[in-house]
Amino acid sequence: MRVLVFLDGSVEDPAVPQVRIDDLGLQRGDGVFETILVRDGHPRELRPHLDRLRRSAAMLDLPEQDVNRWRRTVDEVLTRWPHDREMVLKLVCTRGSDPDGEPLAFALGMDVDEKILRARETGIAVVTLDRGIDEGLAERAPWLLLGAKSLSYAVNMAAIREANRRGADDAIFLATNGTVLEGPTSTVVVARDRTLYTPPPTTGILPGTSQAALFRAAQRAGWHTKVEPLRTQDLRTADGLFLTSSIREITRVHTLDGEPLPDARESHAELVAAYEAEYRR
Amino acid sequence: MRVLVFLDGSVEDPAVPQVRIDDLGLQRGDGVFETILVRDGHPRELRPHLDRLRRSAAMLDLPEQDVNRWRRTVDEVLTRWPHDREMVLKLVCTRGSDPDGEPLAFALGMDVDEKILRARETGIAVVTLDRGIDEGLAERAPWLLLGAKSLSYAVNMAAIREANRRGADDAIFLATNGTVLEGPTSTVVVARDRTLYTPPPTTGILPGTSQAALFRAAQRAGWHTKVEPLRTQDLRTADGLFLTSSIREITRVHTLDGEPLPDARESHAELVAAYEAEYRR
Repeated sequence: MRVLVFLDGSVEDPAVPQVRIDDLGLQRGDGVFETILVRDGHPRELRPHLDRLRRSAAMLDLPEQDVNRWRRTVDEVLTRWPHDREMVLKLVCTRGSDPDGEPLAFALGMDVDEKILRARETGIAVVTLDRGIDEGLAERAPWLLLGAKSLSYAVNMAAIREANRRGADDAIFLATNGTVLEGPTSTVVVARDRTLYTPPPTTGILPGTSQAALFRAAQRAGWHTKVEPLRTQDLRTADGLFLTSSIREITRVHTLDGEPLPDARESHAELVAAYEAEYRR
Repeated sequence: MRVLVFLDGSVEDPAVPQVRIDDLGLQRGDGVFETILVRDGHPRELRPHLDRLRRSAAMLDLPEQDVNRWRRTVDEVLTRWPHDREMVLKLVCTRGSDPDGEPLAFALGMDVDEKILRARETGIAVVTLDRGIDEGLAERAPWLLLGAKSLSYAVNMAAIREANRRGADDAIFLATNGTVLEGPTSTVVVARDRTLYTPPPTTGILPGTSQAALFRAAQRAGWHTKVEPLRTQDLRTADGLFLTSSIREITRVHTLDGEPLPDARESHAELVAAYEAEYRR
């Protein structure tokens, strides 16, 4: 099932071509996006997602994003989707066909992929991959768009395929000096002694909306949380290693670079429960 | 004027939406492209462009590109375009809507932008920008797709906007150690003592089709050519600094990081003449 609503309010058929061949989103990966989980009719972390969409758009010099129009567009999708059916809600804004003209902006509701539902349950195997960036690069070179969620995700997709080739499900990017960065579509969270750790956005990673929600939930459940640089060794010696993302939520990593990690099913279950409780309050 | 032909031979109206909203070229910048200059009805360097399209597609694990079908598609565009009108011919292949399904592949003929015609005549001002990569990265980390011409060009576009903000027309990327890489949409060529220099593809840059054609032409005209690493200082002390790309051809850089460069109009004219002669043989 799919529901497509453009930012101007028009509802269209996603099975029919809707995009011009010269759209710069297609021609140049020149645009921004967000992916939001909708459960029980509620779009999770909508405000942080819209805030990040605004920040990403600003980094790409796209027109200012009208958060209220986006909210109305999201509502239009929600009214057309069964309340009890989980949804992947994707918001996309491209530069459109003319750099000086109107952007192309739409919200697309889709079913959650089977593979993701499985990963939530079983956990995943992950490999570390060099991302080839150094500390300070994000601040030094903003034109590299580190920390912007742009449509230019070919490298992210290539990294996942490389992980698959190595027999794993997903990847964790490392900086050249071995500092832990992020997954191609997720944030890295480490648990140790009832403290959660995640790398700081200054390393050139995307600030995670799900990671922020998890940290909020974990604090409420009595965990400590710290945003600080992590080394590869920290991943191996942790009580638990997790990748967080909107749709996969908190995914447990059971294998890192071919080596089994300590069993973290218990802390995973506890964190998932705390996280879910955030949305039943 | 625009002419759109899909790889299956169908001729479509580019003013009408032709692409599905879930195409992975749009959603993820997940695809490859080439841009070719057509002058006097002749697509320049078609074979090197098609070879590079094949290599890029292989790096992205896209299906093998059928060069003969691409040639037929290009011919279809050419028959619909006036012989005496210069054309930008863009070839695009995305992963399509379903990763296991058919790619979306098309050739799009367009007029050459006014701004590009001007740049060919007047030359351009360029700034150097950190690309944040180190030597050896391309070989060490193929998943970063350095050297593939993917649709994920958001960073390339952001670099040109940063150059514009600094009062320049274009950028030259440098590696973290100061080694010269490439322009966001061009190859760097330096002239010194009747020798042309360009950085080697092992630095993580795209092998330039126009640079290769220029080197061939220059050799025939009595120049020496060398593919070897260049430092920023080499750009400043050169007799001439040029950016080569299919549509802009050989563009003279008259200003680097705000500083005027030595007048290279003479060697530029000589190289352009040699280059053009390649296509009249």
